[in-house]
Amino acid sequence: MVYFWLKNPESEADQQALVEGLNSLREIEHIQALHVGVPADTAPRDVIDSSYQVSEMMMFKSIDDQNAYQNHPLHKKFIEEYSHLWKKVVVYDSVSALPPSG
Amino acid sequence: MVYFWLKNPESEADQQALVEGLNSLREIEHIQALHVGVPADTAPRDVIDSSYQVSEMMMFKSIDDQNAYQNHPLHKKFIEEYSHLWKKVVVYDSVSALPPSG
Repeated sequence: MVYFWLKNPESEADQQALVEGLNSLREIEHIQALHVGVPADTAPRDVIDSSYQVSEMMMFKSIDDQNAYQNHPLHKKFIEEYSHLWKKVVVYDSVSALPPSG
Repeated sequence: MVYFWLKNPESEADQQALVEGLNSLREIEHIQALHVGVPADTAPRDVIDSSYQVSEMMMFKSIDDQNAYQNHPLHKKFIEEYSHLWKKVVVYDSVSALPPSG
């Protein structure tokens, strides 16, 4: 999971540009699933962080596939072309807590 | 997406207990998909936050379903029985950035 905070958090154009950039990553064969999101209009609670502007959920079959994604030319092109839009990125990499049979 | 930081971050027993507690939420009919995770052993990068102990990804069909989940007796029971394990929770609620036809 990746969360992006934009340099211009009020800019819908910048938010939409980043969404489009993230969707360009779909062509990378190592990505099993990709969801691009924006903050949901859920009831505010103290624990909710809705300060980001764009979220990205990617699933990989293996850590090797995730590593290959990091070095993929399309991922590098995405960073080159879109990283000027954000001021902060936070990544949470998780693996299933269940055993394969779970 | 929900991230949990345990009061005893070194305790594998507490981590496992929380994983089991989160898996008990599967019985709630409003949840479309649920993945319980722990930090992945990816190559460290400055942007990665691996300081949490347990992650939870839930998908709902609608914000109404998400609201119903918040008030579901099994969710309340989970909080009652397991909240003593964590010291911090961060929630990121997202909706798809794509139009329904996208």
